[in-house]
Parts: sequence; C-alpha cells; structure tokens
Amino acid sequence: MKKINSTIILVRPQLSENIGMTARAMDNFGFSKLSIVSPRDGWPSKKAERSAKNANKIINKAKIYDSLDDAISKHDLVIATSNRKRFLTKKTYNNFNILKNKIRNFKNTAILFGPENSGLSNQDIRLANFLFTIPTYKTNKSLNLSHAVSVMSYELFQANNISFK
Amino acid sequence: MKKINSTIILVRPQLSENIGMTARAMDNFGFSKLSIVSPRDGWPSKKAERSAKNANKIINKAKIYDSLDDAISKHDLVIATSNRKRFLTKKTYNNFNILKNKIRNFKNTAILFGPENSGLSNQDIRLANFLFTIPTYKTNKSLNLSHAVSVMSYELFQANNISFK
Repeated sequence: MKKINSTIILVRPQLSENIGMTARAMDNFGFSKLSIVSPRDGWPSKKAERSAKNANKIINKAKIYDSLDDAISKHDLVIATSNRKRFLTKKTYNNFNILKNKIRNFKNTAILFGPENSGLSNQDIRLANFLFTIPTYKTNKSLNLSHAVSVMSYELFQANNISFK
Repeated sequence: MKKINSTIILVRPQLSENIGMTARAMDNFGFSKLSIVSPRDGWPSKKAERSAKNANKIINKAKIYDSLDDAISKHDLVIATSNRKRFLTKKTYNNFNILKNKIRNFKNTAILFGPENSGLSNQDIRLANFLFTIPTYKTNKSLNLSHAVSVMSYELFQANNISFK
C-alpha cells in the first residue's frame, strides 16, 4: 500500500500562530511539506516559528508563493477543504476512506486550507479537482485552521498504518 | 448503539487560549461538558471565552474544581491521556476502537488532559482507570492541548455515527 505524503497548502493564512500550529500538527502525524500562498503578515515569521515549537524545521523549509496557481503547478491531485455549502459544479466528499483511496492513486497530492475568516474562495476552489468537508457535528461548523489540519493529518497518518511502537 | 458523551477534564491548564480552543474543538464534534481543575491563570477568563469563539457557552458552563479528586467524583470511568512512557502499573491503550468499546459500557466517562508543559502527573494518573495515548508518527511527540482534544473528540464523534447532512 502506497504511503500518503501530501503537501499541505495554506492559502492566504491570516495569523502567523496558526501557521506555526499547523506545522506542529503536521509534524505529529508525519507530514513535512508545507506551502503557503501570500501569508497576510509576511514571511519569514518569527511568530510562526515559535508557535511551531519542535516543528520549526517545517516552517523554515516552507515554500512561499504569490499565487495558488504557482503553488499547485507541480501537483497531480489538488483537494480543496471547505465547511460551507458551495454552489459549484465540483464534487464534494466527506468520507475519509474515499479520500484516502483517491490520494493513493496520485504521486504528489496537495490539500488546500483557506484563510481563517472566509475559507477558500470560489476562484481557489475552481483550481481543485474536488472538495472535501471534514465531518463535524453540525453542518457549517467552522474548525480552527490548525484543528482542521490536525484531523486531516491524523486521518491520513492512520491510512499509512505506521506502527508507532 | 449508545451515544458517547464524555466529559473533557483539563487538569491544571496553563494557557487560557488553550482552554478556549479546547472548547471550540469539543463543540465542533458535538461535545459540551468541560471541567477544569485549577486553571493557572484563574477563572472566569475573558481570554478563554474569546478563544472559544461560538463555543463560549461551553466556557460559561464549565465546572471548576480545586482538585482532580473532586472533579472525577461522579464519573464511573476515568481515562488519563498521556504521550509519555510511564512506569506505572496502569494499562495503556493506543487504539481508538478499544477505547470506544470501553467507553460504551459506562454512563459518565471523563477524559483527562494534563498541563501543556508536563502532562498529567503520576499522582493524577493513579486516579484513572487506564491510560490512553493518541497515536502519533513518533513516540513521545507532544500534541498541542487543543489538537489532542480535537483528535479525541473527532474520533469519539465518529463512533457515534451521527450523520451530518
């Protein structure tokens, strides 16, 4: 079974702390590739580095882009995450088993997370192959950015069946 | 199948933001009962309320205790979370399926999370029925408090098979 090793792409993230916390969540579940499109508060960011704690190497190696177009140019599968109902002709999944099976067929997957206040724009979502919604107790519940990355990374890590003992 | 509706108990949490973020994570996955033992920065906390965003009702209804003994007095199953190897004669699990099956047999479960810097003390852990370690990529990786609560709440929510559409 192929190992899942996706790139997390933060699109126009607002708070540097959330970038750092995202890196920390990724590191805990074995992910290391972080790309960032137009971080609001500039780059490099000492705040992001500090919030990442021991995962600051992910912050230091993060790739920074001016546009989502550029950020996804080398990825063969692009997944947009969203918790809002969108009226786009874009397939939406909310089942992690389906997601894992799809990802396994590609070599270089990217998973997009939008800005804290508004999520991904319709323009962003148009660039993705499909949408994925992390299941929550009620629809349209807004997950904190690093919580969303925690659950996503945790689930994909589980798919890798890596023993941790 | 019985619904899982555990109480999250934060033991001596240090940062008010983490208490608020914990409430937010719980709310996203359908949990509402929060108890806090000796929050370092005092209580009530405007900072915790603000960080909780729409989950501030969980903060306002949180039960505050001076000792873990008092906090767990009405719980029939107490689970301590830890990412450290402990040399205690206390059974440790790291499989969520086993955890869910155990919880289903009890009415009023509590799940303990320790302080950010040190985790639960051996004294705290002695009061628990067993230990649970959230699986991570490498052993002894320290999860952020609200990330640990996110993954725990998400997994127990999944066990409830609640449809979100």
